[in-house]
Amino acid sequence: MRVAKFGGTSVANAEQIRKVASIIAENEERKFVVVSAPGKREATDTKVTDLLIQLADAVLEKGHVENALRAVVSRYEEIALDLNLSADIIETIKEDLQARVAFDTSHEGKFIDQMKASGEDNNAKLIAAYFQSTGIEAQYVNPKEAGLLVSDEPGNAQVLPESYDHLFQLRERPGVIVFPGFFGYSKEGTLVTFPRGGSDITGSILAAGVKADLYENFTDVDSVFAANPKIVENPVNIKKMTYREMRELSYAGFSVFHDEALMPAFRQSIPVCIKNTNNPEARGTMIMAERACVLNPVIGIASDSEFCTLYVRKYLMHREIGFGRKLLQIIEEEGISYEHIPSGIDDTSVILKQCQLDGEKEDRIITRIREELDVDDVYVERDFSMIMMVGEGMHNTIGLSARATSALANADVNIEMINQGSSEVSLVFGIRQEDEEKAVRALYEEFFGAADDSIE
Amino acid sequence: MRVAKFGGTSVANAEQIRKVASIIAENEERKFVVVSAPGKREATDTKVTDLLIQLADAVLEKGHVENALRAVVSRYEEIALDLNLSADIIETIKEDLQARVAFDTSHEGKFIDQMKASGEDNNAKLIAAYFQSTGIEAQYVNPKEAGLLVSDEPGNAQVLPESYDHLFQLRERPGVIVFPGFFGYSKEGTLVTFPRGGSDITGSILAAGVKADLYENFTDVDSVFAANPKIVENPVNIKKMTYREMRELSYAGFSVFHDEALMPAFRQSIPVCIKNTNNPEARGTMIMAERACVLNPVIGIASDSEFCTLYVRKYLMHREIGFGRKLLQIIEEEGISYEHIPSGIDDTSVILKQCQLDGEKEDRIITRIREELDVDDVYVERDFSMIMMVGEGMHNTIGLSARATSALANADVNIEMINQGSSEVSLVFGIRQEDEEKAVRALYEEFFGAADDSIE
Repeated sequence: MRVAKFGGTSVANAEQIRKVASIIAENEERKFVVVSAPGKREATDTKVTDLLIQLADAVLEKGHVENALRAVVSRYEEIALDLNLSADIIETIKEDLQARVAFDTSHEGKFIDQMKASGEDNNAKLIAAYFQSTGIEAQYVNPKEAGLLVSDEPGNAQVLPESYDHLFQLRERPGVIVFPGFFGYSKEGTLVTFPRGGSDITGSILAAGVKADLYENFTDVDSVFAANPKIVENPVNIKKMTYREMRELSYAGFSVFHDEALMPAFRQSIPVCIKNTNNPEARGTMIMAERACVLNPVIGIASDSEFCTLYVRKYLMHREIGFGRKLLQIIEEEGISYEHIPSGIDDTSVILKQCQLDGEKEDRIITRIREELDVDDVYVERDFSMIMMVGEGMHNTIGLSARATSALANADVNIEMINQGSSEVSLVFGIRQEDEEKAVRALYEEFFGAADDSIE
Repeated sequence: MRVAKFGGTSVANAEQIRKVASIIAENEERKFVVVSAPGKREATDTKVTDLLIQLADAVLEKGHVENALRAVVSRYEEIALDLNLSADIIETIKEDLQARVAFDTSHEGKFIDQMKASGEDNNAKLIAAYFQSTGIEAQYVNPKEAGLLVSDEPGNAQVLPESYDHLFQLRERPGVIVFPGFFGYSKEGTLVTFPRGGSDITGSILAAGVKADLYENFTDVDSVFAANPKIVENPVNIKKMTYREMRELSYAGFSVFHDEALMPAFRQSIPVCIKNTNNPEARGTMIMAERACVLNPVIGIASDSEFCTLYVRKYLMHREIGFGRKLLQIIEEEGISYEHIPSGIDDTSVILKQCQLDGEKEDRIITRIREELDVDDVYVERDFSMIMMVGEGMHNTIGLSARATSALANADVNIEMINQGSSEVSLVFGIRQEDEEKAVRALYEEFFGAADDSIE
């Protein structure tokens, strides 16, 4: 039994939805279908979710509600006509939207959640209707009725544990279940949306609830790449990766998906497969608990920019028990989170995302460190990038850091920081931001240059 | 004007003291001479300081005081006879020791300080007498009379700032000043000894006080070596190094001298020269504020063993503001100091000297971390060594870490940790303890293999 989730571009128009239907029809294991709202049909298009936000604004600001409403409905209308669906479904959707527009606006967050979530909800109804019209036994299921309970935090819902047992019951229902992504309901019965990656989260929760054998995540790429295609030309596809690798890569700016979205599935050790709606034959990328580290100890290279270094020097620092703790205390009190803390004997650096330090906060922190910790020197340096090499096979691979540092040296990249020693699956280099692309390409060439178009 | 300090082996017997006299006679810039107590004459010999501790014990435990006293006096006697000095000096020393033996023993620490310090004090008197007998205009000066004031902490005296002005007055005195190392006097007038490296500290304070042009530290080696001679065969001599390099090297188990002993001189930017009493022509090693980083970016390779890693893993650790601080807080509350904190995304390691963790403390810390920080995993791994490469030229030397990691890889050494990024003059590798010598040799070969017998 599988859960198949389809992203916005996979359900953006009739043509895409036909592909979805054939993917479902092709394998009866695909009993659960989670759908997003219709996404962009081409680069300049507007997602339905954005149209809905405009509609919500129009209602709140007493603007042209009618026009905004029509803009949303017409997107569904176009799809329905193109799929030769009866007018009923559009009526259903129109009535649903009118009901939501009339919804109590006293709590803005809840109102906006209501509006936004309709994108997935109505698309699920439409797709269920289309499935039926093609002869697939299918039914739309609403998260409330299914018992997907979440915490009452508009835009940041967290699933409640009892949901899983409720969802397990869905296995008993006949035919294909079409389930809207992105939202659940609080115990009080109000609709609440998930944070970033909402439909991925729904699919992941559903997969865990129904104890699926596989969670298929359909997007518009054939697989996860070993490096950012914007930096490296035609990077190799990753066939298999582990959850840990996935997590470390998504953390360092890898845009596969939001790294926490898959946790419910991971916790149940349900394998996840990234597949392409437009090329379902492509093998895709399998994400699982373990993999054999054959060919390549490194599975991916990620990078992220705009880090700064807070440098602190104090004579005999290393003899002063509590110095590091006091330093982190100040940083914590300023509400700042840090990435790494490389240390010397009389100095230590704290590396953090520089967006956290506006001029005023920077001045305050530097003053506090100078006065409270009585240091000899303290300053901030900006514009560093972190390059992260990830791979289960990396730990205990003799010579790996030698290969990486040599590749960077040959590319004339100066290494400002190296962090190796805690995570078993990653190695992090701090470099000057202007060297980022050069560095990623050099490391890619070193570790994937020889590889064919895909790696295990 | 120079301060010349002579260590224990440099004043162990008449022959050595003759060398000292000719070194002083040879250059009139050498106005200030700081002497230690007579050290070992050969490997199996006992230092006078140790004889004095035996004497102090004999007094405190009502043992054979006479024998112990005779053992000390005879060492001076032998030297005096061999130097053809009149009997007066031995009388002076004998009376001095008898006075000290009769000293109030109610405060044991102060009593022992009195006894120990006599080793340097009487040797200074003897050497001054010998200088005079050879025609050198010389006088013994007692630290009390010179105004070398220190804090009243037996065995751990800290110099008081006013001392420097007092010592500056010594410049006015005629001839050579022979000054005993190792001790000063509290404001109350009691004798207090310095911590480890006591005579080096005295020389350093005197150099700062008299504003010397150079502080010559005479030992029994031609210079500082680039690596530990016990590990590397005939390591190259270091001709010039900076204070920072000196500090980082002494920290990582480099046995040149106690890294804080030279601070008073360093603070006044007085260059320090390590020279060999037995080969004064040898150029020695100059330690100064700055050096030109010619030939070699790396100046030395040090290593230290018996470190352990406290590993902590917690899902979403990197999102939890304050986690690192709470972890260090626990370590601080257990009175433990750490060396490095490499970090992953969901894990962090704290590297520390394992002697700090007896089984009981280890269990308590692990329990506290598990319970108070609610982590997914926490454990301690032991028997790591830290290899430290030091050199002012290292920072911004592209390819340096590549050379180092490659050398380790070729020696089949797995790198468990790399810490680079804060100190500009050092790069630290964590490796398995059993690989320590292999690693040091490999790095030495890579960075000094081509060098001739000495480096700038």
